Amino acid sequence: MIGGGSWATALTKILSENGAQVGWWLRSKDDVQHLLRTRHNPRYLSSVAFDLNRVFPSTDLKEVVEDADWLVLAVPAAFVQGALDKLDRDALRDKRVISAIKGMIPGKNVLVTDYVAERFRLDVEQLGVVAGPCHAEEVALEKQSYLTIGGPDLELAEDFCQLLRNRYVKAHPAADLDGIEYCAVMKNIIALTCGIAHGLGYGDNFQAVLVSNAVQEIRRFLYALSPNQRDLSASAYLGDLLVTAYSQFSRNRTFGNMVGRGYSVKSAQMEMNMVAEGYYAVKSIYELNKKLKVSMPITNAAYHILYEKISPAVELEILKEKLK
Amino acid sequence: MIGGGSWATALTKILSENGAQVGWWLRSKDDVQHLLRTRHNPRYLSSVAFDLNRVFPSTDLKEVVEDADWLVLAVPAAFVQGALDKLDRDALRDKRVISAIKGMIPGKNVLVTDYVAERFRLDVEQLGVVAGPCHAEEVALEKQSYLTIGGPDLELAEDFCQLLRNRYVKAHPAADLDGIEYCAVMKNIIALTCGIAHGLGYGDNFQAVLVSNAVQEIRRFLYALSPNQRDLSASAYLGDLLVTAYSQFSRNRTFGNMVGRGYSVKSAQMEMNMVAEGYYAVKSIYELNKKLKVSMPITNAAYHILYEKISPAVELEILKEKLK
Repeated sequence: MIGGGSWATALTKILSENGAQVGWWLRSKDDVQHLLRTRHNPRYLSSVAFDLNRVFPSTDLKEVVEDADWLVLAVPAAFVQGALDKLDRDALRDKRVISAIKGMIPGKNVLVTDYVAERFRLDVEQLGVVAGPCHAEEVALEKQSYLTIGGPDLELAEDFCQLLRNRYVKAHPAADLDGIEYCAVMKNIIALTCGIAHGLGYGDNFQAVLVSNAVQEIRRFLYALSPNQRDLSASAYLGDLLVTAYSQFSRNRTFGNMVGRGYSVKSAQMEMNMVAEGYYAVKSIYELNKKLKVSMPITNAAYHILYEKISPAVELEILKEKLK
Repeated sequence: MIGGGSWATALTKILSENGAQVGWWLRSKDDVQHLLRTRHNPRYLSSVAFDLNRVFPSTDLKEVVEDADWLVLAVPAAFVQGALDKLDRDALRDKRVISAIKGMIPGKNVLVTDYVAERFRLDVEQLGVVAGPCHAEEVALEKQSYLTIGGPDLELAEDFCQLLRNRYVKAHPAADLDGIEYCAVMKNIIALTCGIAHGLGYGDNFQAVLVSNAVQEIRRFLYALSPNQRDLSASAYLGDLLVTAYSQFSRNRTFGNMVGRGYSVKSAQMEMNMVAEGYYAVKSIYELNKKLKVSMPITNAAYHILYEKISPAVELEILKEKLK
């Protein structure tokens, strides 16, 4: 497990309680020592106690990677390059790599799995992605959740499903790696825009229309990228969008809400003391779409607000005319 | 306008403020007198002041109908038969009839528009339905809302759209009368089931999966009834489902929540002092599906809980195995 955030912590709980041995790389020495001393992650889901006979926190990335059959990536997308920097190009040669990251590599505008595949010369059959409408906080509470493992090798996807399934987690494999990964990225843009609208005083009626139009926008974009048949009402797509867009706890929605209420992008980021993934996602998707030229009024509005300093009120006035 | 509830009140506000002369039938003499004296509906959206040069509250149904070009039906589905009972079979001969009702005629298991068409020998081209993700309360607050007018005669639908459009209401026509009307009925079943799940302690992760699966269930059912091409992510379908399923104010969700928490159906109804439309909808859709035999795990679960006294906890345990 690569990463020390809430989603990494939730997945480590699920995997280790199912019997897997989990080498767990965290960046912070203090956090590793706290885990080794108290069995709890001091910063995320801190109610969860880990069994240190199965969970091995460490700051030594090479060692963690060397010992592993599976690699699960769960750092913020912006830190993927930095985190994996020290690994040799051959370090993942025989590994199976699952991305639990919902973002793209900033600046490169590529999916995390595409980046990893190129950087480590992996076959796409070695790759998978975890998706699903799944707040890490509800995993900590052992609330019934559903995950989808997307990957072109359905056997690999099913193998990882088996590592996850338990009393409160259902998992199923699906072939559409890219579509699921892009949708997970784009849902953060939508949640952020829902937050902006809410911050401006738009209500539930508008949000329902915004999310409906978002499904259509995501469908157009995915179709332009890879015209597979996919059912966007499956829980890996629509469910993931809903749990984020309708969550009061979504960082992206909260960030958007502050921008809608009049905070500058900078001051919203400082106030939150973190960066919402959707902030980077907007730029990546917007730039990718320069070639594709898909009609994406919601993404465009978010881009104009976040990167071109157009007033949220003005931009939403324009956007609302394009929805129906 | 036929009906005195919140949706009738909201539509009367929109239509009259746009310049239409609205004869408004309410059942209660007291409410009519209160409206005539104070310009406010005492029971719903009571902040809205009506212009009595354009709005004509009355308990005389025949007179209201006789004077009207358009008839807008906005009573609860269970009261449609009773409300229209006194009208002659020819009373609507040259009228255009719009249903704003989200339910089916109990016992008959037919859509409101189908019932009205048969009872008054109307052509389907005289009929339309108002749909949209639209809390009446947000109309009172003049929050941006979107409505869809469904009807086989797109000219009629567009004409009614023109009566509705204003600064905060957008409206567009759509051809799929039955699909939109059925979806509006079924979304109440879903909201009710979301309430049951919430009452039992299921969280946001589960609800997102439930709603995603609901879209697929609605699609299967509509396809079996009339295999038209329709995009269920349009706001008249998905948006309407979302605004209801994710609303804390939905009566159907509240009713379901009480049932999930252990109230009997009777005591939940008594406590709420009203009947949630979804309660009847479940029975109608369930019975219609006896012939169609579509896979409808969510509707079936709700039926078993509400009509066969199966424990909500047991039924949700069964349901959760069928979702993904």
